[in-house]
Amino acid sequence: MPHPLEIVVLAAGKGTRMRSDRPKVLHDLAGRPLLHYVLETARALAPRAIHVVYGHGGERVREACPGEDVRWVLQAEQNGTGHALRQALPAIPDAATVLVLYGDVPLIRRETLQTLVEAAGGSGVSLLTVTLDDPAGYGRIVRDGNGRIERIVERKDASAAELALHEVNTGFMAAPAARLKGWIARLTNHNAQGEYYLTDIIGMAAGDGLTIAAREPSAPWETLGVNSKAELAQLERVHQHNQARTLMEQGVTVRDPARFDVRGSVAAGRDVEIDVNVVLEGRVVLGDGTRIGPNCYLRDVEIGAGTVVLPQSVLEESSVGRECRIGPFARLRPGTRLADHAHVGNFVEIKNAEVGEGSKINHLTYVGDARVGRDVNVGAGTITCNYDGANKHRTVIEDRAFIGSNTALVAPVTVGADATIGAGSVITRDAPAGQLTLTRAEQKTRPGWKRPTRKK
Amino acid sequence: MPHPLEIVVLAAGKGTRMRSDRPKVLHDLAGRPLLHYVLETARALAPRAIHVVYGHGGERVREACPGEDVRWVLQAEQNGTGHALRQALPAIPDAATVLVLYGDVPLIRRETLQTLVEAAGGSGVSLLTVTLDDPAGYGRIVRDGNGRIERIVERKDASAAELALHEVNTGFMAAPAARLKGWIARLTNHNAQGEYYLTDIIGMAAGDGLTIAAREPSAPWETLGVNSKAELAQLERVHQHNQARTLMEQGVTVRDPARFDVRGSVAAGRDVEIDVNVVLEGRVVLGDGTRIGPNCYLRDVEIGAGTVVLPQSVLEESSVGRECRIGPFARLRPGTRLADHAHVGNFVEIKNAEVGEGSKINHLTYVGDARVGRDVNVGAGTITCNYDGANKHRTVIEDRAFIGSNTALVAPVTVGADATIGAGSVITRDAPAGQLTLTRAEQKTRPGWKRPTRKK
Amino acid sequence: MPHPLEIVVLAAGKGTRMRSDRPKVLHDLAGRPLLHYVLETARALAPRAIHVVYGHGGERVREACPGEDVRWVLQAEQNGTGHALRQALPAIPDAATVLVLYGDVPLIRRETLQTLVEAAGGSGVSLLTVTLDDPAGYGRIVRDGNGRIERIVERKDASAAELALHEVNTGFMAAPAARLKGWIARLTNHNAQGEYYLTDIIGMAAGDGLTIAAREPSAPWETLGVNSKAELAQLERVHQHNQARTLMEQGVTVRDPARFDVRGSVAAGRDVEIDVNVVLEGRVVLGDGTRIGPNCYLRDVEIGAGTVVLPQSVLEESSVGRECRIGPFARLRPGTRLADHAHVGNFVEIKNAEVGEGSKINHLTYVGDARVGRDVNVGAGTITCNYDGANKHRTVIEDRAFIGSNTALVAPVTVGADATIGAGSVITRDAPAGQLTLTRAEQKTRPGWKRPTRKK
Repeated sequence: MPHPLEIVVLAAGKGTRMRSDRPKVLHDLAGRPLLHYVLETARALAPRAIHVVYGHGGERVREACPGEDVRWVLQAEQNGTGHALRQALPAIPDAATVLVLYGDVPLIRRETLQTLVEAAGGSGVSLLTVTLDDPAGYGRIVRDGNGRIERIVERKDASAAELALHEVNTGFMAAPAARLKGWIARLTNHNAQGEYYLTDIIGMAAGDGLTIAAREPSAPWETLGVNSKAELAQLERVHQHNQARTLMEQGVTVRDPARFDVRGSVAAGRDVEIDVNVVLEGRVVLGDGTRIGPNCYLRDVEIGAGTVVLPQSVLEESSVGRECRIGPFARLRPGTRLADHAHVGNFVEIKNAEVGEGSKINHLTYVGDARVGRDVNVGAGTITCNYDGANKHRTVIEDRAFIGSNTALVAPVTVGADATIGAGSVITRDAPAGQLTLTRAEQKTRPGWKRPTRKK
Repeated sequence: MPHPLEIVVLAAGKGTRMRSDRPKVLHDLAGRPLLHYVLETARALAPRAIHVVYGHGGERVREACPGEDVRWVLQAEQNGTGHALRQALPAIPDAATVLVLYGDVPLIRRETLQTLVEAAGGSGVSLLTVTLDDPAGYGRIVRDGNGRIERIVERKDASAAELALHEVNTGFMAAPAARLKGWIARLTNHNAQGEYYLTDIIGMAAGDGLTIAAREPSAPWETLGVNSKAELAQLERVHQHNQARTLMEQGVTVRDPARFDVRGSVAAGRDVEIDVNVVLEGRVVLGDGTRIGPNCYLRDVEIGAGTVVLPQSVLEESSVGRECRIGPFARLRPGTRLADHAHVGNFVEIKNAEVGEGSKINHLTYVGDARVGRDVNVGAGTITCNYDGANKHRTVIEDRAFIGSNTALVAPVTVGADATIGAGSVITRDAPAGQLTLTRAEQKTRPGWKRPTRKK
Repeated sequence: MPHPLEIVVLAAGKGTRMRSDRPKVLHDLAGRPLLHYVLETARALAPRAIHVVYGHGGERVREACPGEDVRWVLQAEQNGTGHALRQALPAIPDAATVLVLYGDVPLIRRETLQTLVEAAGGSGVSLLTVTLDDPAGYGRIVRDGNGRIERIVERKDASAAELALHEVNTGFMAAPAARLKGWIARLTNHNAQGEYYLTDIIGMAAGDGLTIAAREPSAPWETLGVNSKAELAQLERVHQHNQARTLMEQGVTVRDPARFDVRGSVAAGRDVEIDVNVVLEGRVVLGDGTRIGPNCYLRDVEIGAGTVVLPQSVLEESSVGRECRIGPFARLRPGTRLADHAHVGNFVEIKNAEVGEGSKINHLTYVGDARVGRDVNVGAGTITCNYDGANKHRTVIEDRAFIGSNTALVAPVTVGADATIGAGSVITRDAPAGQLTLTRAEQKTRPGWKRPTRKK
């Protein structure tokens, strides 16, 4: 490895325009900090080392990005990108190729960077440029008569002819460490901001007779940075659209890619359908033929083949079997495990509970800290009283039990197999298998009673 | 009728890029298979016969499209569009005009096809072309110096000059059956794909000295086909946007046309307002002045004038009277019939039940298999226990009854007119009219009792 | 004040294309009538008088816009914009500058109008024009060889050269009242519509040798009018996008600005996050670090710092303390006041109730007309029976009380501090502090009982 790759990630920016107490690189894109994307892509390039230059938010940034492969470099004062890179260079051997990434440019692709590193070739310099319809405030790429890059001119320093250029600097570059050290040492801060600009080294490299190899990304969004909440929102949509497209290419039917959010990973089988306005977080597995209805929110769930999740349901840290029917208005909380063919209906909350095959919990029920057997029917308004104010207790409902409506099961308690619980009961002791158990006061009618009348 | 119209719908494509077990033409657009749209439009042209060439998914396609007017033609092998059309031609009399449609191009408009058929005129050939900013992979329309169509050149066979053409082939064409039979017989599969291309007949027709009459659709989306889930999603949005525009032209206020889905038919009165992210399925009737809140899902419902449906409600196969108030978080299941001025509130499920005028069921209730009279007040937490584990039974609540909260009504049971049911009761026998009926254990306080303490 | 400003708002249009019984200027944009926007902007210019010319919907328009500063002018017949303005002029002193606004053009900005009035300068005429890529049906601005505005030509009267002009008339203008009276008097209705067009005075002014000072708005959307529900929806999105951008500039994280609706005012602290598809109505205050989950609907609520509102929640006219946890599927109705660290969970409705610090109401509960102390635990399925069919009564639950599940609290009733209520109770009398109170029938098992069997 004559020219080992070392990556420097510039992540010290304050991000004043974010108007946030959070360091800029820790803002979330699809549920993960911006910097995680950059580090993940950096790691995919298998470099010898990753140096992260941090400043604002110091410890928060470091804590948010655990990993032994990151070498943290403090930039105590923010004096520009050139100054930032300078902090990292002493620890990088001269023989290395240095690739510069940005902690607030999260969607750069590994393939693009690979191309960029290869273009540098160990002894040369390569620069990622992008051609924009509206080059706006970006630094323009100035080429000589032979099409060779001469320098980068910032917008405010640009002549009219230069402003008309549409090829702009992205800041991504690769260069030999030894040369880079020399150029960085020569940077000055004689400009309006009083900062050391990394971009100035391009002119130096050209001046030293090197050819700057330019490469372009597959799409401009790869090089979009986040400086404001509006830009964060824009990038979120780009990323969500990319993710939706990937899932659609895999065969997932997404009813409206503009109303679909994935914040994590999705593994989807064949003929999965996702209706409008669904949010998937964490690790989501959707079996063949599953259908997710409008407005559902799923986090860390695994759903078996053929299961239907009806509108407005919220599922978290749960696993659901095959051919189940969930919702609408169902809430599966962490630790829910539904076997095949289970039904969970509207206004039902399940937490830390196993529900057996074919069991039905269809209406207005809370099942928590419980084991429900197979082919159980839990009536509407059933509550497992799992908390006595101090401790949580378990409820067991065995196979084929029938729980009448509006029943309270005061845990710890077991309802035996094939048992029936009468409606409106409060079950405080185990209910034997195969029998009817209930609490029931006598029904009385009070003939003389008068309805209250409306008071003034 | 010297030139009777016969329509051939090509619907045999496999649709590999859909990555689905379902035949391509059976994928849903706004809740209906693509092929249904094409057949509906074909029927609107009142042809003498409709021939559908099918292949992949064979029986599934036929079963999904019942109707005596369709003549099914099996294309056992997929050897291109020309080969597909050839399967249908033997059954078509020479005197007919043949119009070729595509099972995966669902949004073509009747008016456009009418124009195309008229342009063919019985003895000529007409072709639907479209001019695109980005002609991409479509076959270009090559015209001679007099502007007459000479032939169609596929992108991969096109010269640079031809690639610069923006008028492209849509595949829709009309031609005399007799001529078509001749041209189809002359098609060869000497091309990269080894397929017989229908488009080649345009060159043959021109070579035979016929003028090809070109027509354009009202908008390019009419001719968009579905080859991938991304294209399906794109077409879904086009179609939904068209539907929203039609409803807005009729006077419906749609808060965000980009977040509105209609999968069926909507009949809306005056001054109807539909808030964001609403989905309407099946046959939906909205009376004058109805308002549908954000995130509601309605399927096969009829709603009377002045009724308000508050956010996050789900209504299915139900009818709702005038000036009702539904939701938020209401669930009307099939068979619900609400009279005028009824109120159904949050976390309430109603199924197969009539609810009388002015009655209120406002909180956390399940009413199933029931008849509720007028001016009834059903307290929070009321459950009709309609299922005994084996059979469903009916609950009757007569006019002006008042059902105390947390009551279980064990069906079959009747609560008489003006009856009052005490809170927390389990009513297993009929409650007489005008009186207070309840089940109630004595309230006791156990002074010596100690709260449980937290276990380690 | 030599040239006092008087504003005339033209608001008499019928709006036939709205297909509504409501006067056009009373249709809602972000929850407020179009005319409110125009009046608010007019007032911000501090004019001496605001004249509103109304016609269709007469009294409804006046009643919808209370305010002593508005002088209402009836235009009994709609004979064009010139005719409309003529109705208002008699009451305007000659020395005034008249600014003409439109009741159906709601997003015009105060700054733009200020510039327009200043451009008129007291003795001259100024006109707001806008340059459009597609000038469509708008009247073109015709300038002479020196670039001075000569006249406005309507599309249907325009020559080919005039049709190619992209600068169009917006209708917004300022002029001296005295001159305006003269020009208006000279207007004729010799045109296809038989109407008096205000735009004709521009030509008259130019003919009288005046220079028409042209100004442009900051963006074309400022001058968009509403003539159809489609245009209303379009303007709604423009306005929502503007509002989202403003909030993002203030530092609010908006996950998808295209799925965010504000219908009122939002005051947001630092590091507020708003997930997709949220609707905020009325006056909403969001403390530092609050997070609002997907699909929530909030109206007139104040939320303390650090509070999280989970998906699908509906909050109305409520105040929520700091570090609370609300939802998912929570409903806070008017009069709810939650102290810090309170938890309100799924399928819980709270109305007109105070909930103390750290209290938890987590499942399937209705608390209405109540005071709940601090560190109270309200079990699942608890109902405050606040309504006896005639009157509402209050429930008081004192500090650290524990309410067992499926309990009905029949108001008026008090549960003392540290009291425990057994599950399934119906509490009709006060429960003493520190003790266990319950109603409970004996649990019995009926061994001989047989389950019902399914009937044919």
